[in-house]
Amino acid sequence: MSIQNMASAAKAASIQMAALDGDIKNKALKAIAGALLSNKEAIIKANSNDLIRSEQESLELPLLKRLKFDEHKIAEVIEGINSLIGLAEPVGQTLMSTELDQGLELYKVSCPIGVIGIIFESRPDALVQIATLCLKSGNAVLLKGGREAKETNKILAEIIEEATIKAVIPQGWIQLLETREDVSEMLKLDDYIDLIIPRGSNAFVKYILQNSNIPVLGHADGICHCYVDGEADLKQAISIVNDSKTQYVAVCNATETLLVHQAIAKEFLPLVKAELDKSNVIIYGCENTLKVIECEPASNESYATEYLDYAISVKVVKNVEEAIEHINHYGSGHTDAIITENNAIANQFMTLVDAGNVFLNCSTRFSDGFKYGFGAEVGISTNKIHARGPVGLDGLLIYKYKMIGKGHIAKDYSEGIKSFTHKKLDGPFHID
Amino acid sequence: MSIQNMASAAKAASIQMAALDGDIKNKALKAIAGALLSNKEAIIKANSNDLIRSEQESLELPLLKRLKFDEHKIAEVIEGINSLIGLAEPVGQTLMSTELDQGLELYKVSCPIGVIGIIFESRPDALVQIATLCLKSGNAVLLKGGREAKETNKILAEIIEEATIKAVIPQGWIQLLETREDVSEMLKLDDYIDLIIPRGSNAFVKYILQNSNIPVLGHADGICHCYVDGEADLKQAISIVNDSKTQYVAVCNATETLLVHQAIAKEFLPLVKAELDKSNVIIYGCENTLKVIECEPASNESYATEYLDYAISVKVVKNVEEAIEHINHYGSGHTDAIITENNAIANQFMTLVDAGNVFLNCSTRFSDGFKYGFGAEVGISTNKIHARGPVGLDGLLIYKYKMIGKGHIAKDYSEGIKSFTHKKLDGPFHID
Repeated sequence: MSIQNMASAAKAASIQMAALDGDIKNKALKAIAGALLSNKEAIIKANSNDLIRSEQESLELPLLKRLKFDEHKIAEVIEGINSLIGLAEPVGQTLMSTELDQGLELYKVSCPIGVIGIIFESRPDALVQIATLCLKSGNAVLLKGGREAKETNKILAEIIEEATIKAVIPQGWIQLLETREDVSEMLKLDDYIDLIIPRGSNAFVKYILQNSNIPVLGHADGICHCYVDGEADLKQAISIVNDSKTQYVAVCNATETLLVHQAIAKEFLPLVKAELDKSNVIIYGCENTLKVIECEPASNESYATEYLDYAISVKVVKNVEEAIEHINHYGSGHTDAIITENNAIANQFMTLVDAGNVFLNCSTRFSDGFKYGFGAEVGISTNKIHARGPVGLDGLLIYKYKMIGKGHIAKDYSEGIKSFTHKKLDGPFHID
Repeated sequence: MSIQNMASAAKAASIQMAALDGDIKNKALKAIAGALLSNKEAIIKANSNDLIRSEQESLELPLLKRLKFDEHKIAEVIEGINSLIGLAEPVGQTLMSTELDQGLELYKVSCPIGVIGIIFESRPDALVQIATLCLKSGNAVLLKGGREAKETNKILAEIIEEATIKAVIPQGWIQLLETREDVSEMLKLDDYIDLIIPRGSNAFVKYILQNSNIPVLGHADGICHCYVDGEADLKQAISIVNDSKTQYVAVCNATETLLVHQAIAKEFLPLVKAELDKSNVIIYGCENTLKVIECEPASNESYATEYLDYAISVKVVKNVEEAIEHINHYGSGHTDAIITENNAIANQFMTLVDAGNVFLNCSTRFSDGFKYGFGAEVGISTNKIHARGPVGLDGLLIYKYKMIGKGHIAKDYSEGIKSFTHKKLDGPFHID
């Protein structure tokens, strides 16, 4: 099937999916969980083929680890599906209702976006999470996973498709793309696809932004900051900065730049360096940092770098205003934390830093859909519209206005025969 | 000042605007209303210059009408500002709050988008409405109005800027662009501008979509439909179709295509033709329509045409399914109405038609921010993400996640020392 035919089939399915009852979607989710369990040997076999091939191709160890999809991982994704089943039905919620005039009622009702195209990295569990989030929210989905995981992804998509079609979800709702060329094709199909969610490298996300008219949700960079204020609890600050930098360096919510108030720089910098040295973190410091601790010199480029590694940029700043300015200039709007005991300064920072996630006295590593209690996430967004931060079910929904009249025409209002009441209504959408 | 400098100034102002208190914004709105009133003679003078020049340039009569900005129009926009002042403060609303663990609290809080670029048509009242909506929602704005209204727009922007700067709104928050070349420049500034809202012709909106990486909110086409079902009240149907088509033909929510159930086509088509004939509406009918009434033959192209004139395409359909399919194929996702007395069919239509506004037994002409009770609108959106249908204050907002900890680090949770509680919290965002 051509990519256009796949997208067209997904579009047709998406129309019908908007009308699916919550119970039917939950039964289909249950069917997926059951099918994953009963096919676990075949899944593990496909995954071991991927693992063997990837080892032969000398895939790096951390990527091999993420690729592995064993009994434990299968149990985990099934647990995820069960928690998704437990969530309230997101589609058909009445978000607002107004009486415009007697007998003329306006309702704002949540509905699926339509067709979502998602490109994700090597973890096969991402495929299950994304597909089930799309199903629960009533969206059709085109999926493209990492090349390393191709056999695992293929069998997972087949299992999910088979289980859901049996459970009367419209055929065509889930489509697996296989090659990079498929993705290039997909980017042109703005007649069929409503939203692209790319998860991957900075360069890859930028390529997609520049090569498609389809709206994109996601993030290119994750340049996160910790700002240690003059009124910080320094012990807490050392622990938070160390966790933000070293707890998992390869992810987008790891901190890349440390900003330190000048009043505490002399005391704090040697302490934090001693802690970071334990993980062999390379420090790139500004001139004032270099006066206090031994480290590499930072350039302006350092502050624009997402290391994703055991490395950090450090800058001494005059005050919170300079910290905010630095973050709004160099940051990527992902996650930025302040460490301070001064609530007024914390408030100032959290209001004026223009990022999806702004934290006080905790690690930037908390910026994550699972940790936020969303069950799962389709990605983290640094967009300024639609959805920001970790994106769960909410970000896969939009709304439509439904209006019910009894023969009302606009002429009566423009000629002053009738006038609008604009009264707030209670209760969900219904037709009398 | 270069467009880049203007956008950069707006960006800087937008950061500060996010922190503005609701009272300060309302005082500034009051100051705008006062300044418009006290400068009304100068405004009317500038507008009469625009009118004289446009008449000499043979601007069409309906456009001249829209261009006119007299004492009555000034009173109207002041009334609009007063109703905006009365609306609840939209920024800083807590949309969700969760305890992630003891002492670790997550809040989702509404905030402005940042910098909005809006290109609008000849009506000078649009400038005041858009600027005040942006101010109330805490956004900076770059405005480009129609060339015809340039003197009126200039004095209005100056009055608004002066009044608001005195009322301590950050300088640079409002910027007036003057030429088409300015707009082309603006489209490149994705580092500074977060959202473009173009109001204008189909070709113009498409040009913007294809020439900018900045997200766009709006609509290119307004191909709206009326579907008269087999179980419609035909008297009501005639009145609604006539109003939808002829009440104001030049606007995006006017109906362009009439779909008629085959069971009532023979009875209904002559009746509706008699009504539309009173306004000299040209009818383009399908083969089955041509068998019943005298009219021009329709082509596939007819169904994809936004006439914005006294013309309508007509098609006889087998059933509601064919009507839905036709609308989802040819429609623009703007506004589509069904006329029926059958609630199940109405529900089917309203669920499966993929449009921002789906109506039962009322005119498509009701699709409008003022009629919806939003006070004013920045435009009507056919987007599938962020905001759909008429867009008021809500569409100018996004949110950020604010998290407050007491030294919490992610390592404790990954190592199982602590675990998440994910308890729903009450009350607005606050730092203890």
